[in-house]
Amino acid sequence: MGSQSQEGSGSGHRAILDSCPSGLQPSHALVQKRVIGSWPFSELSGTGGKGGTLPGSPRPFQSRQAKVKPEPRLGAGLTRSSAPVPATGRSQEEQGLLGASGADGLQATATLDGDPYGSRNRSTSDLQPLLPLKCELLHVAIVCAGHNSSREVITLVKSVLFYRKNPLHLHLVTDAVARSILETLFRTWMVPAVTIRFYDAEELKPWISWIPNKHYSGLYGLMKLVLPSILPLSLARVVVLDTDVTFSSDIAELWALFVHFSDKQVIGLVENQSDWYLGNLWKNHKPWPALGRGFNTGVILLQLDRLRQSGWEQMWKLMAKRELLTLQATSLADQDVFNAVIKEHPELVHPLPCVWNVQLSDHTLAERCYLEAADLKVIHWNSPKKLRVKNKHAEFFRNLHLTFLGYDGKLLRRELFGCPSQLPAEAEQLQQAMAQLDEEEPCFEFRQQQLTVHRVHITFLPHQPPPPRPHDVTLVAQLSMDRLQMLEALCWHWPDHPPHPRLQMLEALCRHWSGPMSLALYLTDAEAQQFLHFVETSPVLSVRKDVAYHIVYREGPLYPVNQLRNVALAQALTPYVFLSDIDFLPAYSLYDYLRASIEQLELSSLQRKAALVVPAFETLHYRFSFPNSKAELLTLLDAGSLYTFRYHEWPQGHAPTDYARWREAQAPYRVQWAADYEPYVVVPRDCPRYDPRFVGFGWNKVAHIIELDAQEYELLVLPEAFSIHLPHAPSLDISRFRSSPTYRDCLQAFKEEFHQDLSRRYGAAALKYLTALQPSQSRA
Amino acid sequence: MGSQSQEGSGSGHRAILDSCPSGLQPSHALVQKRVIGSWPFSELSGTGGKGGTLPGSPRPFQSRQAKVKPEPRLGAGLTRSSAPVPATGRSQEEQGLLGASGADGLQATATLDGDPYGSRNRSTSDLQPLLPLKCELLHVAIVCAGHNSSREVITLVKSVLFYRKNPLHLHLVTDAVARSILETLFRTWMVPAVTIRFYDAEELKPWISWIPNKHYSGLYGLMKLVLPSILPLSLARVVVLDTDVTFSSDIAELWALFVHFSDKQVIGLVENQSDWYLGNLWKNHKPWPALGRGFNTGVILLQLDRLRQSGWEQMWKLMAKRELLTLQATSLADQDVFNAVIKEHPELVHPLPCVWNVQLSDHTLAERCYLEAADLKVIHWNSPKKLRVKNKHAEFFRNLHLTFLGYDGKLLRRELFGCPSQLPAEAEQLQQAMAQLDEEEPCFEFRQQQLTVHRVHITFLPHQPPPPRPHDVTLVAQLSMDRLQMLEALCWHWPDHPPHPRLQMLEALCRHWSGPMSLALYLTDAEAQQFLHFVETSPVLSVRKDVAYHIVYREGPLYPVNQLRNVALAQALTPYVFLSDIDFLPAYSLYDYLRASIEQLELSSLQRKAALVVPAFETLHYRFSFPNSKAELLTLLDAGSLYTFRYHEWPQGHAPTDYARWREAQAPYRVQWAADYEPYVVVPRDCPRYDPRFVGFGWNKVAHIIELDAQEYELLVLPEAFSIHLPHAPSLDISRFRSSPTYRDCLQAFKEEFHQDLSRRYGAAALKYLTALQPSQSRA
Repeated sequence: MGSQSQEGSGSGHRAILDSCPSGLQPSHALVQKRVIGSWPFSELSGTGGKGGTLPGSPRPFQSRQAKVKPEPRLGAGLTRSSAPVPATGRSQEEQGLLGASGADGLQATATLDGDPYGSRNRSTSDLQPLLPLKCELLHVAIVCAGHNSSREVITLVKSVLFYRKNPLHLHLVTDAVARSILETLFRTWMVPAVTIRFYDAEELKPWISWIPNKHYSGLYGLMKLVLPSILPLSLARVVVLDTDVTFSSDIAELWALFVHFSDKQVIGLVENQSDWYLGNLWKNHKPWPALGRGFNTGVILLQLDRLRQSGWEQMWKLMAKRELLTLQATSLADQDVFNAVIKEHPELVHPLPCVWNVQLSDHTLAERCYLEAADLKVIHWNSPKKLRVKNKHAEFFRNLHLTFLGYDGKLLRRELFGCPSQLPAEAEQLQQAMAQLDEEEPCFEFRQQQLTVHRVHITFLPHQPPPPRPHDVTLVAQLSMDRLQMLEALCWHWPDHPPHPRLQMLEALCRHWSGPMSLALYLTDAEAQQFLHFVETSPVLSVRKDVAYHIVYREGPLYPVNQLRNVALAQALTPYVFLSDIDFLPAYSLYDYLRASIEQLELSSLQRKAALVVPAFETLHYRFSFPNSKAELLTLLDAGSLYTFRYHEWPQGHAPTDYARWREAQAPYRVQWAADYEPYVVVPRDCPRYDPRFVGFGWNKVAHIIELDAQEYELLVLPEAFSIHLPHAPSLDISRFRSSPTYRDCLQAFKEEFHQDLSRRYGAAALKYLTALQPSQSRA
Repeated sequence: MGSQSQEGSGSGHRAILDSCPSGLQPSHALVQKRVIGSWPFSELSGTGGKGGTLPGSPRPFQSRQAKVKPEPRLGAGLTRSSAPVPATGRSQEEQGLLGASGADGLQATATLDGDPYGSRNRSTSDLQPLLPLKCELLHVAIVCAGHNSSREVITLVKSVLFYRKNPLHLHLVTDAVARSILETLFRTWMVPAVTIRFYDAEELKPWISWIPNKHYSGLYGLMKLVLPSILPLSLARVVVLDTDVTFSSDIAELWALFVHFSDKQVIGLVENQSDWYLGNLWKNHKPWPALGRGFNTGVILLQLDRLRQSGWEQMWKLMAKRELLTLQATSLADQDVFNAVIKEHPELVHPLPCVWNVQLSDHTLAERCYLEAADLKVIHWNSPKKLRVKNKHAEFFRNLHLTFLGYDGKLLRRELFGCPSQLPAEAEQLQQAMAQLDEEEPCFEFRQQQLTVHRVHITFLPHQPPPPRPHDVTLVAQLSMDRLQMLEALCWHWPDHPPHPRLQMLEALCRHWSGPMSLALYLTDAEAQQFLHFVETSPVLSVRKDVAYHIVYREGPLYPVNQLRNVALAQALTPYVFLSDIDFLPAYSLYDYLRASIEQLELSSLQRKAALVVPAFETLHYRFSFPNSKAELLTLLDAGSLYTFRYHEWPQGHAPTDYARWREAQAPYRVQWAADYEPYVVVPRDCPRYDPRFVGFGWNKVAHIIELDAQEYELLVLPEAFSIHLPHAPSLDISRFRSSPTYRDCLQAFKEEFHQDLSRRYGAAALKYLTALQPSQSRA
């Protein structure tokens, strides 16, 4: 957990540390012996990829081992061929990993004042630790709750994946929100050699909710205390990370530090890089007890097996209860409790080199660490201000972080060469299907795009699901940054709308539709960050918690329009959905009108299968005053300021709506399906999905309406409903369609495949759709 | 140099290698001794940041050194405190760095068949080499010629910078093109702790041009042979890299391998990962002589001092001449010569672990290397197909490469904490100026943008300068991706122009302007790659070698319009420039007409200071037929299909052009400057620069015209010249300007500062421009 911003300087613990001789040099043999003797390796072989030494690898160091007299259990449990040997030519104590020198290990803590770690006045660049075996599985535990932490954790995971060379098992303690986000993300990410296990944070609350807590991390921070109790018993070691850390090195190097734990040490921590625990920051500042500056719990190595043996659960509870007799609450959540325990039991802690948790709080003392280190390993954004923290070198650290914030996650789908069973089954199948595609086939690009599984980050921003109401409707649409940029101008000209740099269409839409929305956005990782910034600074959008934004990450040359629609549709939480497009503005009252219509038509009670048609219009002018009623709309229509949608280019798309009848209609009326009909409709949430074979331009909505008709949805036009399309430049895919005969041929081929599927599913009833397959002239 | 694609498998050298016992285990002490004894460190202290051991660092390993009996010169030359100790607990021979075991070092070569390197059947993850001292300067030499290699080398350099923790000195052997590109780039990149020295490739040509060469790298590949002769005598060691390699690790780890050279070894190389040199790929395939599979020269460690002592220059020349008696030419450039020398003098080579040069040619055997390695260090795209090479794992390697291709170079402006004098003087000043800005000041964002130095990559694509002609004119303009995307639609509607996904405006412009152009593009690194792809696949643009594209990398929130114009202007190579904007299409004949006018007006011979005005018009319609003559234009104007530019919103911008007079004019006529005048003009290349204080929207051209008038340029309107503005959505900056009073206030402040500067420079003559400073109403 992060420390709060703090000031002042302490000397309280200097006395203790100064008692540690600066030139500590226990004999090399002794250190080795202790390390060897204290290392229970048996667990590792259970969790690692291939346990044991690799066959055929020479082990010349065995002769040196012999000299240091390993204890008997070495032979039985050793699974790391190189474990007993120090990481570099230097002896261990040189590396500041002095814990092994016995129960007085604490004296060797890397502190900001003393320097027994050896990180100061010396190059640390040659202090390369041993790394785990190739293919050894590393375990990482993270507590993550809510939308914002889920975004944070993904950046953290990206940084870990970028440098990692080992398989990873992530143990994620999540609330329901984070779980659904991360489950979807990792399923669609398909990173080789990464496995995930979720733990329900809700179930853990009773374990820690009795502890009053003032830290911004809330109850979730405290959950790190119970990890030894909830992680699988078979798990011996785990790295625990806060969501606000960024890796700048291979996590295997951190994992490798377990090897230096003495047999009493069970918790690896970096010293706190502030004076918070010295307790003199302000009048009546009473921090929890800690050894000197205490330790920061943003990065923890937990030796779980021995923690459990030592009665950790009793220990921390006892300590927390005792302190809470005099202190009202924890200020820094779990970190206060960890420190209180360590103060009482200093033998439990194994101090880690400061570079493994460079803490960037406002008044951090971290500079003393990183100025001398050759190499930063982990950055910890432990100020509540996060990246906006004031720090002389903030730019430097932000640059490291920004690298991963905007990093294209798909580049991390890198296999680990030579490690077994790296891919999830789904990814394996996909890879095979991809491999079977013929690169020379004219529609190769389409087929590749159809098979592409895009990473999906649902509810990218905080979202409050609408309260359950039987007739509620969610507007469902999809969009890309390109489209939004093209629409920018348009919104500038829009009356009532103050100009905003981009995504203004979204703001306009929000003004027109007061109900819930589920929007899929097709973006790069970098664009997703721009989008985030836009929404957070938009007065219109930032207050709308009922709009769910789902990021579908870009991959491939064709716009996966129906995959996007399906993502947005799957995430709609109301019983009904309005399937719209982003360049349409609905009538101001449409949301209320639709709910009233659903109720009046008794759709839900009658289980009536209906698709309510919202008639579509368009304006060709930038400057245009949106009609407040059907009457106003008709006036504009008569004046030639509005047209029925695509009246000029593609009349059959909406002609079956029967605009003449709509003009006069007072009540909903039924219309019949006809070829190429593609109205905007309101349907139950469990309606058929869109057919993902239609990527790019053409037939993507038409096929969906056929599907509805084949499933016998009534098409009912609503007499007061309308929405209006705003002008914009044609999409990239339209241009391609128009210019490329191959594109048109491929579309025709997919239509035919679609019809074959229809026939299979609906038999003779699907015959009538055959007409819809004739290549149409007007479209091109 | 890359090897060409090749097939077949060889056994010719297996006999040699098999003679090397697979379980080689010389005594630990012996190896250490040899390493220590063979390492001439004295040079290092001259080139490194701080030579010698750092003060205050304990050296407990000295006791172990004593045991291995260092030779006398150790004490004198040793500048690496940790050099004599093996990198990991394993002994050196375990790490496959067996060169130290004596003159028979070659037997320890890491080969694809034998395995004395130890990279097979074993985890290499624990083979962490020693690293150089913190702040030690590492030297890298690269030969780079032409536009495409310059782009390549930047991606290479980004990958090196991403992982590096040491100061770097780059020795770049360049032709004139690469030099001007890279000089500008590094000057504007301002990466801390990177110094550059250029060497003129032209001067080296006589040294190697006598060698016939069939390789695609041409003469430049061969230049690696002469590096020992041209690099400074004070330089003892250098890493030589091909431009087509990508780093995936810290280059210091590669540098650290020098420590393992025996005293005879002078060249560190990775084995060639193909069967090329085995010589049985096809009938009459006669490769140059090599030891077994030979070595690949994409990554070379050169021990320069000893190379020079050993008479390298004579040696390789002799060998090349001898071989050329029977072989017609080198096939793989320098690589053939290196291999011929090594075949004759195997004691010279120090074999490097295969991961330091993973060669991705078409029929590579590299898989044998990387499947077993825990960690790839350097990827070598040594197929002429580069990233399009066919390889089972191509996706994996491309992902690594794409990481750096699109990586935002500004994130690499990271300081090296704790290393002295990291910043170039210019960057230092800039940093100080930035630090003096007041974040609370309302115009802070503007002032920050004004100070921002953007990375500039001139002539991003191959470019042929126009032949020198006294009246030639270059069209100068600037643009961003946003603008191009907005213009996409527009070009779709344009008659004659086949639709293209984006940047179509550029194509349209190319059809209208047949002369040279110098265009500044404001892009991110990722967008620059998209742009490259667009131009390369555009039939219109790919053939135009007289269009120079200069990438100015995005940084900051405001569009640095005048900085962009200055970049494009500075790169124009003709005596005259037409200062235009990207959303204007010039009359079809304008290029010819302008040259004729310059000649007729005798501007160059009379040294007449004139700015030729090209009258500006606009259309508000997407569908519009471009006039073929002034007569046609006038017809459209009378029909209301065209307007004079900004007739509705900003008439004073062009009113002084006097359109009524232009209508009738048969000859150029002079007009007077008036407030807010901003015509498009043709001026000599050495005209005043644009004022970079105007960032974002407003006054950026107005100030430039004032400057021309103040310097007494005549304003002459050309009677047959015109260009037409095409409609598009307003820019982001216009929106901001219109919506933000602060924005308008800041612009006013900059106008006033501009006028103060004018008064200082032009005295009373500048008084008349004061009127231009009144805040104008119509603009907002």
